[in-house]
Amino acid sequence: MPALDFHDYLKARRSLIDHALERYLRGSKKQPQTLYRAMHYGVFSGGKRLRPILTLAAGEIFGGKHKYLLPFACALELIHTYSIIHDDLPALDNDDLRRGELASHKIFGEGIALLAGDALLTEAFHLMSRPQVAQALKPKLVLEVLHEIAHAAGVGGLVGGQAVDLEAEGREVDVATVEYIHVRKTGALILTAARVGARIGGATPKELRKISRYGEFLGLAFQIADDILDAKGHNGSRVGSGGAGDKEKKKATYPSIVGVAASKSRAQELLQHCLKEIELFGKDADPLRGIARYVVEQVQ
Amino acid sequence: MPALDFHDYLKARRSLIDHALERYLRGSKKQPQTLYRAMHYGVFSGGKRLRPILTLAAGEIFGGKHKYLLPFACALELIHTYSIIHDDLPALDNDDLRRGELASHKIFGEGIALLAGDALLTEAFHLMSRPQVAQALKPKLVLEVLHEIAHAAGVGGLVGGQAVDLEAEGREVDVATVEYIHVRKTGALILTAARVGARIGGATPKELRKISRYGEFLGLAFQIADDILDAKGHNGSRVGSGGAGDKEKKKATYPSIVGVAASKSRAQELLQHCLKEIELFGKDADPLRGIARYVVEQVQ
Repeated sequence: MPALDFHDYLKARRSLIDHALERYLRGSKKQPQTLYRAMHYGVFSGGKRLRPILTLAAGEIFGGKHKYLLPFACALELIHTYSIIHDDLPALDNDDLRRGELASHKIFGEGIALLAGDALLTEAFHLMSRPQVAQALKPKLVLEVLHEIAHAAGVGGLVGGQAVDLEAEGREVDVATVEYIHVRKTGALILTAARVGARIGGATPKELRKISRYGEFLGLAFQIADDILDAKGHNGSRVGSGGAGDKEKKKATYPSIVGVAASKSRAQELLQHCLKEIELFGKDADPLRGIARYVVEQVQ
Repeated sequence: MPALDFHDYLKARRSLIDHALERYLRGSKKQPQTLYRAMHYGVFSGGKRLRPILTLAAGEIFGGKHKYLLPFACALELIHTYSIIHDDLPALDNDDLRRGELASHKIFGEGIALLAGDALLTEAFHLMSRPQVAQALKPKLVLEVLHEIAHAAGVGGLVGGQAVDLEAEGREVDVATVEYIHVRKTGALILTAARVGARIGGATPKELRKISRYGEFLGLAFQIADDILDAKGHNGSRVGSGGAGDKEKKKATYPSIVGVAASKSRAQELLQHCLKEIELFGKDADPLRGIARYVVEQVQ
């Protein structure tokens, strides 16, 4: 897929996802007002929509319809948004800025930011369990996918990774620990985003295994790329009260252990693994290829 | 049901619930360790298990089996526990003590306490969507009940009530606002606990309506009783860093607006409504009667 086409693809999918998110959030009647505003601000403050786009792109390979994929795609984005709002709180990373915009707690206060995160996490499960979703798909499949997303978001995934990351702060850690953190904190949700698309789309077990391997490699590549951007100061959008980025905070990152050059070649290696896993899907998997290249090549 | 019998009933159900909670938490392999310890501490620091007992008691009326009721009963307790851990954080109520014990963030730090709350909320949905649950019950029913619980925990319930409560702090509020807060912050989960038991147990729509009315009245009675205990200083177990209880913080409470005496008679009135709604269930509803009396009579 030529670069321009992929750019158009991303733009079209982002627009689809943004409209769906707007619609789902509005469902909560915009009450209580401040809570609604904080939820809306978090969801619409410049996210790249990587996770929901992955769900759509993986689902499309198997003929999955957008209207069936979107509730799950958007639930993943709500979960990602909640994790960012909580992560930025003074209790955790204490970041004042996110993507160049003020963090939620700097606008709405810590209390409302905390509650907006709680509300978005809860809303994700509320959204996936809507009667309309169960009517369109098999309830058993909906429950299985919801369970998988809960796993990826919970102690075995996102929250568990956050906890280990928090405890590793300021300590010397090895590559194994960094990968343990990455696989859970970032990898689990990215892997699940791809898997959920494939499952809702109707992938066979063999096809699902391929998509899963792609998702695992992509998750790791994504976090390494993000760490490289941090090391280069290109993620300067995330600035804490003390102006402390990951490096100053002695966060466990890939480049801080193996260096930037080795991190780049690891990311390239992971990209090649990604591409190999989805070879069999031919042209239908071009968006998945575009996403993997987009993630890795921004840091080369 | 004589007082002693009801006491035995509570004890037996609490033991059942505690064992199930222990089993479900252990499922997460106790890793990461600190996070697991914080989750375990929150769940086992003296909760009365009102919500899960309500689910069992309502379910038993219709012949619901404990093994089918317990995942939902325990999910409700996990959600209640998460809300308490987050509520006690400095960003919200800033309470150092809860039920006479140190609040989670005073032991594990604010970061881990925040994450333990997030993990418990996520685990609640992970638990309800387990394959074993869907195999035993109809997946459609499981999804409907999960959806109802997500609603009660979200912007239309618990979190929404918390947000309005936070914004009402220090302001003059009327009885309508206090009831708005109560219905969402406490009432929604109590109502849902009773309803979920009835639904899993197999109540007819008419029976479910009766249980719902009981649950609504009980939820309001519970919060009024809790406010009276606060006003009397009998909830002294909850003490903030500044030693500020609800009264000092100018929280919106029932007794602070209508006085303690009027609050007591309102609670009595609600108890009578509770009892009337479940009259038709005869002796089978004795535990629900016992729960309503237990809630209201402690403050008379």
